[in-house]
Amino acid sequence: MTDDEIANAWDDICKVLTKDNDDLKSDILNHVGNKWSLYVVHALGIDGIMRFSNLQNHIKGISQKMLTKCVRELERDGLISRTVYPEVPPRVEYELTPLGHGLLVQVTPLWYWIANSVDQFKEARDNYDKTK
Amino acid sequence: MTDDEIANAWDDICKVLTKDNDDLKSDILNHVGNKWSLYVVHALGIDGIMRFSNLQNHIKGISQKMLTKCVRELERDGLISRTVYPEVPPRVEYELTPLGHGLLVQVTPLWYWIANSVDQFKEARDNYDKTK
Repeated sequence: MTDDEIANAWDDICKVLTKDNDDLKSDILNHVGNKWSLYVVHALGIDGIMRFSNLQNHIKGISQKMLTKCVRELERDGLISRTVYPEVPPRVEYELTPLGHGLLVQVTPLWYWIANSVDQFKEARDNYDKTK
Repeated sequence: MTDDEIANAWDDICKVLTKDNDDLKSDILNHVGNKWSLYVVHALGIDGIMRFSNLQNHIKGISQKMLTKCVRELERDGLISRTVYPEVPPRVEYELTPLGHGLLVQVTPLWYWIANSVDQFKEARDNYDKTK
């Protein structure tokens, strides 16, 4: 984005940053900031359709309870879809929706930038704390 | 970013999403999600150097106390710089650092996408809540 594009984009953004949308906004940002949400979106983005057990094996350290909560929230916000096949035992598959793919595309550059800027953040903090 | 670039970026991102960096991560995301932080970064990104009173006039609805807190946190994380000129009364000016400009560039497309996807999020929620 150029500086002009950034300035124009903010006209639209400010319309969303209202009190009315506070809950929605913080929930969406929760997906952006929650490690487990990011891992699920990332896993489905890379590997396509996955069953619950695949996701659990794929995401190191996540508990069944946490994964259940996580996929439910992502499904509620339309970021992943859940399909139940009437087999015995029932087969349940998860897939990224176009909206979820959009989130992955938007969030990756931000996180990549944060990952590569961590040392600069730490240095800034150390310097600030030394002078105060 | 292509799908391959996204997959590669996540190798770096996962290194940052560790427990060690949890505090740093949540503080940085706080700047990403905090309306007032975003407004300050945006105002300085568009208008360049600004005094405290300019910022306060520019950002509708922010209290002096909140702005003070906000610029202090942004300064601590190296996103804005603060220069005091020894005049009477002292002149204090704020400016975006290169790191802060980087944040603005990264955050704008994400927020622009969220702003344009709000209706889809709301619709997904309504549908989900109707079926449960």
